Amino acid sequence: MSVNAPVKRRFSTIANSMKPSAIRLLLKVAQEPGIISFGGGMPNPESFPIEDVKRIFDDLIMKNGKKMLQYGATEGLSSLNEALSKRLAEKEGIKCDPSEIIQTTGSQEALYMLGKILADPGEYVITEAPTYVGTISAFRASGIKMIGIGMDHYGLRLDILRETLKKYPDPRFIYVIPNFQNPTGITMSLERRKELLELAEEKNLTIIEDDPYGNLRFSGPHLPPLKALDKSGNVIYLGTFSKVLAPGIRLGYVVASKDVIEKLNIAKQAVDLATSTLSEYIAEAYISGGYMDKQIPKIVELYKQKRDLMIESFQNYFPEDVEYTRPNGGMFIWVTRRGANTDEMFEHSLKMKVLYVVGSAFYPDEDNHESMRLNYTYSSNEDIIEGVKRLGKVFETYGK
Amino acid sequence: MSVNAPVKRRFSTIANSMKPSAIRLLLKVAQEPGIISFGGGMPNPESFPIEDVKRIFDDLIMKNGKKMLQYGATEGLSSLNEALSKRLAEKEGIKCDPSEIIQTTGSQEALYMLGKILADPGEYVITEAPTYVGTISAFRASGIKMIGIGMDHYGLRLDILRETLKKYPDPRFIYVIPNFQNPTGITMSLERRKELLELAEEKNLTIIEDDPYGNLRFSGPHLPPLKALDKSGNVIYLGTFSKVLAPGIRLGYVVASKDVIEKLNIAKQAVDLATSTLSEYIAEAYISGGYMDKQIPKIVELYKQKRDLMIESFQNYFPEDVEYTRPNGGMFIWVTRRGANTDEMFEHSLKMKVLYVVGSAFYPDEDNHESMRLNYTYSSNEDIIEGVKRLGKVFETYGK
Repeated sequence: MSVNAPVKRRFSTIANSMKPSAIRLLLKVAQEPGIISFGGGMPNPESFPIEDVKRIFDDLIMKNGKKMLQYGATEGLSSLNEALSKRLAEKEGIKCDPSEIIQTTGSQEALYMLGKILADPGEYVITEAPTYVGTISAFRASGIKMIGIGMDHYGLRLDILRETLKKYPDPRFIYVIPNFQNPTGITMSLERRKELLELAEEKNLTIIEDDPYGNLRFSGPHLPPLKALDKSGNVIYLGTFSKVLAPGIRLGYVVASKDVIEKLNIAKQAVDLATSTLSEYIAEAYISGGYMDKQIPKIVELYKQKRDLMIESFQNYFPEDVEYTRPNGGMFIWVTRRGANTDEMFEHSLKMKVLYVVGSAFYPDEDNHESMRLNYTYSSNEDIIEGVKRLGKVFETYGK
Repeated sequence: MSVNAPVKRRFSTIANSMKPSAIRLLLKVAQEPGIISFGGGMPNPESFPIEDVKRIFDDLIMKNGKKMLQYGATEGLSSLNEALSKRLAEKEGIKCDPSEIIQTTGSQEALYMLGKILADPGEYVITEAPTYVGTISAFRASGIKMIGIGMDHYGLRLDILRETLKKYPDPRFIYVIPNFQNPTGITMSLERRKELLELAEEKNLTIIEDDPYGNLRFSGPHLPPLKALDKSGNVIYLGTFSKVLAPGIRLGYVVASKDVIEKLNIAKQAVDLATSTLSEYIAEAYISGGYMDKQIPKIVELYKQKRDLMIESFQNYFPEDVEYTRPNGGMFIWVTRRGANTDEMFEHSLKMKVLYVVGSAFYPDEDNHESMRLNYTYSSNEDIIEGVKRLGKVFETYGK
């Protein structure tokens, strides 16, 4: 072997099977000048409580600096788990002991670890179709097979689920995003929630309820999470500070029965030991100091107005046969044109300097190219109008 | 099935095989009043640059608040990777492009992801014996088999390694901690480093060099990292801010050839999307503002004096046949008494209110009960003296 020959390295089977996320790739292009991106899932930086974070930090660092810079417990800061336990009972009707909560490095880590502890490689789980692309990455990284179940206006279709369970009777879990789903914006109705829980109890199925957007409701009544309605302990609930505080602090949490929390704790010791103590202290003060309750209505107001503007722009600039969801909250609209191929449209879109995420990225187990996901929270109002205008042209020229 | 019957949940094979870390369990006991703990691997909070972090944060949050609270790139903040690339060249002789660096949620995440991308479950790797217990957890969580190679005063024994490679010719990688090893405190000699690299090049073996303590040298000349001596691209280097800034920000990094960085990037998208942007901004300013260069000598001075005090206390209070290493840096001393069983001694130690980590926790593939790991960085000077005194009594009464 010659000196300085580059190493020919062999990677693991799973490493060779993993693909970079469509959205992560998009983020690089989105930085280029003149590009309008509806692609990412980023909060608007105007929604960040910068002054509050400064005040909280300045107060904490002098009082608790030694603790907030030290290693924390794997399950998370106890005062934060207590504050969340209280808040979840008050706001969501979720009754849980602080010991039934674990902090994670964003919800992404929770998704990854749940896949790891609940399913062996090659085993199957059920998700909505389409579903969050980060969830698909997380589960694929553990070699899990996903079976996607179609949705209607009321959420996951239970008739299809029942049929699927005949063929696949023992999925390791069912993963759903009941509020303002990513990517569709659809909210599961109360009746559907209850039916899903009944089915889960009947079949002894674990449900993972991912709820990053529940606080971002623009209109309509608040619906109780599955976790609040659940009597059987079947539901594992995921929350996050990414959309109500800021994603840069990487802080999410899981609420589950103690057997699940214990396994997550051991997995987390191997994956990253503990969550950022600094972030946990900030989040605790953000809740307990009343900052969160003040901030959420501001975020809701900002995003509601952007959703309205995007939908108004659709009416102005999209061909009439382009369909779209009208979410009552959250961050995304799902745009569909029958017969279109949004993957093929993408290069034209790029030339027109407007970005979206191709719908196909959100399907765990089928090819479906008729849709795209648009984010309305990140762009300026001017960019929303101009971007939709450009997309309208792409639809007219290449979209059928 | 009765209503409200508790769910009988099935966990994955790997979840059922994982065990909680001995050290994490210890952390809970260590909180009890009156306990002196040499068990954890925690920096002394006196070493945290609290005033500097406050100054850095206050400056950043007003200037860059919108960016430091937003999602970051998976590979990490580009200005931080640039600052590290420059610093590693200057201080360590490691020449790398910023694109050959990825930020991780502490070094623990780096260890976990490297195990995941470099080895299939059931494949074997080589480590020092004893080795860092967090590394054992990380690799076990991916189902990796570890073969431990004994050490002498100069580090990993290459004669044993050569013999082992005859029987196990294709390990996925060799994991070493060349500076002030955890748990032994031993530093690999320059000659041994060169020999190890030659062997790795000859056999085309990947080396993972974990260097959390390299900056904490009390005496003796600085030795170049394997990564700086490596001509072949065989070495993957791990650094961390946990010991030179603070562990609560959860920030580590990997320096490696681009093929490895690319796989880590994809794995990280699945595991936690990105590292805390907040932590990355703080770390970048900590390096570039010259704070790190000012702080390291203070930490070294604090820890050197504590190491001296612990060794002096051994001389005063330990039976004569208790052996111990005399590390030139880092955080740990390895204490051994031939014929003793430190696992059996532990309950007596607990009664005497002094804690250590049992040596057996650090062996990846053998039973060895003659040693214990003591940390000298965390405890107060009074506690170091009193704790060693108590341990001396435990040794005298139960330690043989």
